[in-house]
Amino acid sequence: MFSRFRRFLIGKPLKSSALKGEKLGILWGLPILSSDAISSVAYAGQEMLIVLLPAIGVLAFGQMTILSACIIGLLFLLVASYRQTIDCYPTGGGAFIVAKENLGAIPGMVAGAALAVDYILTVAVSISSGVEQVTSAFGFIKPYTVPFAIALVVLLMLGNLRGIRESSKLFGIPAYAFIFGMFALVIYGTIKLAGGYQPTAPDLDPVAPLKTITILLMLKAFASGCTALTGVEAVSNAVPNFRDPATKHAKTVLLLLAIIILLLFGGTSVLATQYQVVPGDNGAMLILMAKEIFGQGFMYYYITGTTFIILILAANTAYAGFPMLIAVMSKERFAPKQLSHRGDKLSFDNGIIVLSAVSILLIAAFRANVSHLIGLYAVGVFISFTLSQSGMFVRWRRTRERNWKWKAAINGFGAVITGIVVLIIAVAKFTEGSWIVVVLIPMLVFLINKVYIHYMATQAQLKINEDEFAKFDFSKKSYINRIIVPIEHVNRSSVRALRYANMICDNVTAFHVAMDEESAKALQRDFAKLNTTIPLVVKFSPYRKVVDPLLRFISSAEYDYKEGDMITVLMPDIEPRRRWQNILHSRTRLYVERKLLKHKHIVVSAMPLQLRDDKAFLKSVNQGKGHTKEAKSKEGKSKH
Amino acid sequence: MFSRFRRFLIGKPLKSSALKGEKLGILWGLPILSSDAISSVAYAGQEMLIVLLPAIGVLAFGQMTILSACIIGLLFLLVASYRQTIDCYPTGGGAFIVAKENLGAIPGMVAGAALAVDYILTVAVSISSGVEQVTSAFGFIKPYTVPFAIALVVLLMLGNLRGIRESSKLFGIPAYAFIFGMFALVIYGTIKLAGGYQPTAPDLDPVAPLKTITILLMLKAFASGCTALTGVEAVSNAVPNFRDPATKHAKTVLLLLAIIILLLFGGTSVLATQYQVVPGDNGAMLILMAKEIFGQGFMYYYITGTTFIILILAANTAYAGFPMLIAVMSKERFAPKQLSHRGDKLSFDNGIIVLSAVSILLIAAFRANVSHLIGLYAVGVFISFTLSQSGMFVRWRRTRERNWKWKAAINGFGAVITGIVVLIIAVAKFTEGSWIVVVLIPMLVFLINKVYIHYMATQAQLKINEDEFAKFDFSKKSYINRIIVPIEHVNRSSVRALRYANMICDNVTAFHVAMDEESAKALQRDFAKLNTTIPLVVKFSPYRKVVDPLLRFISSAEYDYKEGDMITVLMPDIEPRRRWQNILHSRTRLYVERKLLKHKHIVVSAMPLQLRDDKAFLKSVNQGKGHTKEAKSKEGKSKH
Repeated sequence: MFSRFRRFLIGKPLKSSALKGEKLGILWGLPILSSDAISSVAYAGQEMLIVLLPAIGVLAFGQMTILSACIIGLLFLLVASYRQTIDCYPTGGGAFIVAKENLGAIPGMVAGAALAVDYILTVAVSISSGVEQVTSAFGFIKPYTVPFAIALVVLLMLGNLRGIRESSKLFGIPAYAFIFGMFALVIYGTIKLAGGYQPTAPDLDPVAPLKTITILLMLKAFASGCTALTGVEAVSNAVPNFRDPATKHAKTVLLLLAIIILLLFGGTSVLATQYQVVPGDNGAMLILMAKEIFGQGFMYYYITGTTFIILILAANTAYAGFPMLIAVMSKERFAPKQLSHRGDKLSFDNGIIVLSAVSILLIAAFRANVSHLIGLYAVGVFISFTLSQSGMFVRWRRTRERNWKWKAAINGFGAVITGIVVLIIAVAKFTEGSWIVVVLIPMLVFLINKVYIHYMATQAQLKINEDEFAKFDFSKKSYINRIIVPIEHVNRSSVRALRYANMICDNVTAFHVAMDEESAKALQRDFAKLNTTIPLVVKFSPYRKVVDPLLRFISSAEYDYKEGDMITVLMPDIEPRRRWQNILHSRTRLYVERKLLKHKHIVVSAMPLQLRDDKAFLKSVNQGKGHTKEAKSKEGKSKH
Repeated sequence: MFSRFRRFLIGKPLKSSALKGEKLGILWGLPILSSDAISSVAYAGQEMLIVLLPAIGVLAFGQMTILSACIIGLLFLLVASYRQTIDCYPTGGGAFIVAKENLGAIPGMVAGAALAVDYILTVAVSISSGVEQVTSAFGFIKPYTVPFAIALVVLLMLGNLRGIRESSKLFGIPAYAFIFGMFALVIYGTIKLAGGYQPTAPDLDPVAPLKTITILLMLKAFASGCTALTGVEAVSNAVPNFRDPATKHAKTVLLLLAIIILLLFGGTSVLATQYQVVPGDNGAMLILMAKEIFGQGFMYYYITGTTFIILILAANTAYAGFPMLIAVMSKERFAPKQLSHRGDKLSFDNGIIVLSAVSILLIAAFRANVSHLIGLYAVGVFISFTLSQSGMFVRWRRTRERNWKWKAAINGFGAVITGIVVLIIAVAKFTEGSWIVVVLIPMLVFLINKVYIHYMATQAQLKINEDEFAKFDFSKKSYINRIIVPIEHVNRSSVRALRYANMICDNVTAFHVAMDEESAKALQRDFAKLNTTIPLVVKFSPYRKVVDPLLRFISSAEYDYKEGDMITVLMPDIEPRRRWQNILHSRTRLYVERKLLKHKHIVVSAMPLQLRDDKAFLKSVNQGKGHTKEAKSKEGKSKH
C-alpha cells in the first residue's frame, strides 16, 4: 500500500539508460539553473533598503544605487571567472571540485560544506521570500505563512523526486514570464516617470536623515545586497546536466544570466530609488512598486504571481544543485555513499530528502522571515567563490596554458575580492546570524573529514594488491567449520535448522540459554525425544542475557575451539507473512547477529520458518478439525 | 556512552532471583497501590462543583452532598465485590483475568482494553491535577503547566524503570503525610465552624439559583464524581506484588483504602459545602479550602505539597498496574510478547515506556486541563468493573461453592449498578470526551484480536505433536545444499566469503548484479585472477534492483535448482568498528536478507570483514609506509 502511494506521487521508475535523455539545453537550462540568481531581484534590493531606511531615511535610496553598482561589478567579475572554470571542469562539481583538486582535501571539504549550507539557505530564503510576495498582495494568507512555506518545500521535493526533465519543463515557462514582467515593470515605470508622474512620497522618519552614514551600516547593507549573487555557481556545478556540447551551453547560459541580472537588479534598484519605495511590514518591494506603477489591476497580480513562481524556481535550482554536489562529494568519499545512489527516477533521492528536511527546519525556526534568514545567507556562497577562484589561480600557475597569466590574474583578483566580501559579511552580519554559519562550517568539515578517513581506511583494508590475487588458497579443508544452533524451544523451526546443520556439517551443537530450571528441563525432555546424536548444551543466564553465555561457551574448554576454525551460528526463527506481524515477534535474531558479527571467526546464518497467513489457520479451525479446543486448552504452554 | 548514561539513570541490573525480594507488605502496599483512589479527593469533588456551580449556583453544594453519598455507597459495593475477587484470584490480573476466564476471550479483550485506557488516563489526570494544585498556590508556574506536567511523567518513568521496591519506599511516606494533612483539614475546618467562624461568601451569579436542577446536569456531575472510584481495582490487579500471605494483605489494604476514602472524600465534600468553595480559574478546591481554613501559613503549603505528591503517587499506581496488566495480557497472547519481558531492574520496561509516551501525548493534547481530561476518564474503569463482576457472578453460578448464592448476589448487584454507571458516564459525558473512549475500546479489541489470532496460528504451525518427535530424519544427504555468494567487488571481504563457501560446500556460485557493462568487465577481470574454479555469474539490472535478478537466476534453467535443495546465500559484508560508521555503509545486506528469507528454500548467511579502527589506519599512514600517496592517487577507483 505504501509503495503504491509512493508510485502515485513520484511516478514509474526509469531505466539507468534513460539518464542521457534527461539532459538540458539552453532554452530549459537557463530557467532551471539561473532562477536562483535572477530571483534575488525580489529580495536583495529590498533587504538593502530594510537595513538603510530605518537608519538614514530618505538618504538610503542614493546609497542603494551606489551599492547596487558595486554588486553588479562583482557579478561580472564572477561570471568571467566561472566561465574559465566551466572550460576546465566540464564534468561539474564547481567550487568543491576546483578547491579539492587544486588546493587539497581540507579546502575541498570547506568548499563542499559552504556550498551545501548555501543550497539549503537558498531553499529557505527563496521559499520564504516567495511567500512574502504573496502575503504582500493577499494579506489574509499572512497568518499561514509558515505552513504555506513548508507545504511549498514538500511540493518541490515531490516534483524533484519525479525526475529532472519533467521538472525543467514544468518550471521553465513561468521563469520567462517573470523576466518579461520585470522588464515591463522597469520600462513602464521609467516611461511613467518620464511622462511627469509624481510618486507618492514615503512616510519616513524626519529625524532619520540627520543621522550619519556609518561604514558598518553600509557594509551591512552591502552584505544583504550580496545575496543577489548567490546562485551564479549553480551553472558551473551542473555542467553535466547540459546537453552536448555541455561547456558551450553552460557558458552561454551563464552570460545570459549575468545580462538579465544586470538589467533586472539594476533596473529595479534605480526604479526603487526614483519611486522611493519603503518595504517592510506593509509589503515586499517589488509588489509595492508594481502597485504604484500599474495600479491594482492585471499587471499587479501578474507581477505578484510570476515573482512568487520565480522564487519557487530559485529553490528548485538548489534541488538541481544540492543533490548533485552531494553526489559528487559522496563519490570523493566526503559524504555517506548512499547519497550518490540514483533513485527510481534517476534523481538523487536521498540528497533531495535531506535538502527538504533541513530547509523545513530552518523555515520553521525562523518563522519564514526573509530579513532574519538573510543574515545566514551569502557567507557560504562567498566562501565557495573564494576557494573556487583560489583553486583556479593555483591551477593556472601549475598548468601554464596559453594566456595563463591573464587568466590567473582574473581568478586571483576574483579570489581577493570575494575573500574580502566573506570577511565583510561574516563581521557585519555576525550578530544577525552569520555566526551560525561560521560555527557550522568547521563542524561540517570535521564530520566530512571523519567520513573521509573512514572510507580511506576501509578501502585500504579491502584492497587486494595485484600480486595477492593468485595467492589465495581455495583448496578444501584449510580450516574446520563448526555449527552452533541456538534454540529457544524444540519446535518445527528449530528442528528444521538442526536437520539442515546436521546435513552440511559434522560438528553441530544445539545451544540453549535458560532463564530458569523448569524451562531448561522441559527443553531437555523434548530434545531427548528427537532421533539425533547432536549434543545439547544448556547454560543459565541470571541477567537474562543471550549473547554473552554463547560467547563464553565458545571460548570455554568445553567447546574445544581451535584458533582458525570457523563457527557458523545458525539461528532458527520465524518469518511472518505480513510485515506488521514482525512487531509481535522479538527481534532477538537481529540483535544476536549484530553482536556476534563483531567476531571474525563467526558466521551468522538465518533460517526462519515461513509462516502461512493467519487466515489459513482460522479456516482450518472453522472447518472443525478439532485444533481449536486443543489449542485453547493449552494456551498457557506456548512453544515459541 | 549511551549505555553508561542509561545505567546512571536506572541503576545496575538485577538478577531474576531478586524478584521475590521486591514484594510489598501492607505498610508500603497501601500507599503505592491505593494512592490513585485516595488522591481523587483532589479532583472528584471539585469537578462535581465545576459542573454544578455555573448551572445552579449555590444550590450546587446541597446536590454535591447527595451525590457524594451515592458514590461512597458505590465504593463499598465495589470493595465487597473485589474482596471476593482477591480470594478467588491470588495470581492477579483483576478484571481482565476474571472476564477472560469466566466470560470468554472477547469480553477479556474488552476488559483489558478498558483497563489499559483507564491506567493511561490515571497518569494524565493525576499529573494534570497535581500540577493544578501547585499552580493554584504558586501562580507564576501557570504558564509552564504543560512542560511541568510532561517533566513529571518522565521522572515517574525513570523512577519506575529503576524497579518496584525502590519506588515504594521513595513514594510511601508522603502518602501518609497527605492522609494526615487531609484529616487535619477536615477536623480543624469542622472545629473552626463549630467555634462560630463565618466563611467568606462566594461570589456567585445571583440569577443561577433560579435555574432548575435537570437530570442531565445531575448525571454529568455524578459522572465526574465517579472518578473518585478509579483505582480501587489496582489492588486486586496487583495481588502478586504483595508479600505472602498475599491475598490477606491485599484484602486488608482494600478495606483500609475504602475507610480512608470514606473519611477524606466524605469529609472534604461536607466541608466544601459548609465553606461554599468555588473552584475554577481562581484555584483548586482543596487549596482554596486550605487557604480559608488555615490561612497562608505552614499548613497551607503543607496541604499543597502533600496533595501534589499524592497525585504523583496516583500516577505511580498506574505505573505499578499498567505494565503488570499488559504483561498478563501478553502472556495470554493478547499483546506483543515483548511486553511481558522484564528489564534489567525486573520491571516491565516496555509497558512503562508505552504508558509514559501515551500519557505525555494526552497531556500535551489536552493542555494538562483536568476538566477536559475528566470526560474521558471513568468510562474505562467502570466497563472493567462491570465485566469483572459479571465474570464473578458467572463463576459463582458455575462453582457453586459454599455461600455461592450470597456471593453471586453481591457480584450480580455490583455488575448491574456499575453497568448502569457506564451508560450514565458514556451518555452524560459523550460530547465532553467519553466518545473517544467509546470509539477507542472497540478499535483496541479489534487489534488485540488480530494479535491473538496471529499467535494462535503461529503456535499451531510451530508445534510438534508427541508422535512426530522421533520421526524427524536426521540422516545425512536427505537433500542437497548449494551456496550462492553475491559479490559487489573482488576484495578481501568477498574473497574470504568465497573461500569459506568453497570449504563447506561443493556447489558454490559467485553472483554479481551489474549496473553497467564497464563495472561488469572490471569485476570479471579481477575474478579471473583468483586461483579458483568457482563459477561467476553476472546479471544486468537496468532498474538497479538487487534481489529480483538473484531470485530469477535461482529459478532459471541455468542454475538447475531442484525442488527440495537448500540454497545458502552467503553475503560478504563489512562490519565497522564503531556504531556511527554503519550509516556510511549501505544496509544492502539486511535489505536483501529480509527479501530472501520469504523463501523457504533459502538460508541467508552473513560473513562480514571486521574493520580495524580508523586510528590504526591513520597511524600506519603517518608512519610513512607509503600507503598515503598511493591511496590518494587512486581515490577515484574505490573497490568497495
